Amino acid sequence: MKLAIDAMSGDLGCAPVIEACEGFAKDHKDVELFVTGKKEELEALRVFDNITIVDARDVVKMTDSPLGVRRQKESSMVKALMMARNNEVDGVVSCGSTGAFYTGAMLFVKRIAGVEKSCLMATLPTLNKRGTCLLDVGANSENTAEQLKQFGLMGSLYSELVRGVNKPKVALLNIGAEDHKGDEMHQEAYKLLKDSSLNFVGNIEGRELLDGDVDVVVTDGFSGNIALKSMEGTALTVMKIVKNGLLSSTLSKIGALLAKGSLKSSLSEFDYKSVGGALMMGFTKAIVKAHGGSDAKAFRSAMELAYTMVENDVVEKMKEGLE
Amino acid sequence: MKLAIDAMSGDLGCAPVIEACEGFAKDHKDVELFVTGKKEELEALRVFDNITIVDARDVVKMTDSPLGVRRQKESSMVKALMMARNNEVDGVVSCGSTGAFYTGAMLFVKRIAGVEKSCLMATLPTLNKRGTCLLDVGANSENTAEQLKQFGLMGSLYSELVRGVNKPKVALLNIGAEDHKGDEMHQEAYKLLKDSSLNFVGNIEGRELLDGDVDVVVTDGFSGNIALKSMEGTALTVMKIVKNGLLSSTLSKIGALLAKGSLKSSLSEFDYKSVGGALMMGFTKAIVKAHGGSDAKAFRSAMELAYTMVENDVVEKMKEGLE
Repeated sequence: MKLAIDAMSGDLGCAPVIEACEGFAKDHKDVELFVTGKKEELEALRVFDNITIVDARDVVKMTDSPLGVRRQKESSMVKALMMARNNEVDGVVSCGSTGAFYTGAMLFVKRIAGVEKSCLMATLPTLNKRGTCLLDVGANSENTAEQLKQFGLMGSLYSELVRGVNKPKVALLNIGAEDHKGDEMHQEAYKLLKDSSLNFVGNIEGRELLDGDVDVVVTDGFSGNIALKSMEGTALTVMKIVKNGLLSSTLSKIGALLAKGSLKSSLSEFDYKSVGGALMMGFTKAIVKAHGGSDAKAFRSAMELAYTMVENDVVEKMKEGLE
Repeated sequence: MKLAIDAMSGDLGCAPVIEACEGFAKDHKDVELFVTGKKEELEALRVFDNITIVDARDVVKMTDSPLGVRRQKESSMVKALMMARNNEVDGVVSCGSTGAFYTGAMLFVKRIAGVEKSCLMATLPTLNKRGTCLLDVGANSENTAEQLKQFGLMGSLYSELVRGVNKPKVALLNIGAEDHKGDEMHQEAYKLLKDSSLNFVGNIEGRELLDGDVDVVVTDGFSGNIALKSMEGTALTVMKIVKNGLLSSTLSKIGALLAKGSLKSSLSEFDYKSVGGALMMGFTKAIVKAHGGSDAKAFRSAMELAYTMVENDVVEKMKEGLE
């Protein structure tokens, strides 16, 4: 197996990526890593037989316009994606800007035959800790019912092969539980999902997204993006209010001090930040986006995800499932 | 001024409505109230000169199908709405099921001439305590750009006349800040809003909905419903996690006890429950929906809202604004 690793595009520079690559290279002797970035900053990786440093002089910044990636051929991100395009690697991992990385994947990496639209998938942290895959969360601003069915197939296969869920429960994000709810497209998508081979459990409403009762939630890119961002914004706002409340009096400050440890560990299980990352679905390679602020541990787990996707032939099986 | 008050359809029965009506009738001698419900339960209101009890033997339950309201002619809710239809009152207040009340309004109360679609408006509690009006939050499953422009006009007039905001800032809920974002309908809505007389400030993303930087957010009923419910679900989930964290150890329990008062008062300012209620917009009468679990104070403030709407001629001014 061969993976391309973009070392430069994250918020924290290349240090956490280097650390993650070192650990990964030791534990996976069978995997060849191609790490793209400024070679003088990646010296530490030279000692590994299974790591090749690919010099890239440019870096895609978080603030760059996503479309600008077209012209950033010398960047670590595009160099990693080009290796996927040229069949030199089986997967790509980056913690760069979601917009640029997705745009780059669309421009440079082939879609699986039969996939009408590629999309972005987020894994929501849920109250019961199972996690729920939500797709599309914003790659498309308009989708057809057939595309939604394909999102369901891809999400279901992913849950089964990567997350190890038996017969993943697939639901459709809609404005009510009944099958006639929503606009024409969503009514049609309901029918297609119901008649498919998927374990389709019906419509789900925004209120239930974080309950974790289903494994996959299918949505069009427009509503999905609004749902995801509304959830992120609300989680942040409620946390701010709790913090303000805890710091508002001497008594509550003492209380906050005593409760801090427990509160932190409880909240870390439900990290809204994990909502920020997204997987690219529908491409012929495993394209994994780590969170922009990934530390070594977070980046390593994104690498393991790419490894699991390739190891389990997720792309091949999606090809079959979509035929 | 005359208002019809549905006394029976709330979660807590008629007691809080009676208490609210008593206070209101004393403070507003110029207003005639028509309170619909089982007359034997409303005896306490007999002593008021400006209250008329309208006997209604049936009650619309929270669990009834919204469409069932068609046949519930003898219910307190429909009797109140019929008084609006027959021009016997200027406004209606109910704390019954949102779905049934909105369906009833659509069936029995006229729309303002020129209003293509009536809609539901929620007032979001925001971090800066200004509050933001979001419409449509789910009356329609599909909208046109022209309808979104009308929602903007209605929301803006409401903010100005009822909430006292000078030149309300109006934004469009979309999947990015730039004017070309979203599907064709949202791009067209952007143009119409920009070319209108409104103080249109551009697109807003789901993440910013609770910041309170704008006064009115325009959205189609499908995305709006998903945004509102996603926010409700997330607020509830985060609160549960905070609670679990605070109760997870002896130390944190003591801390929670000390911080309880401050935390409660901080959270009460941002009551996610207030998101549950909704106003009916676009009708020729002031149609106000109080939260299902309203106590006397909450119901009273819904009555005051109806009063302000009628007193300030909101419906008349919407008619002019929409010409």
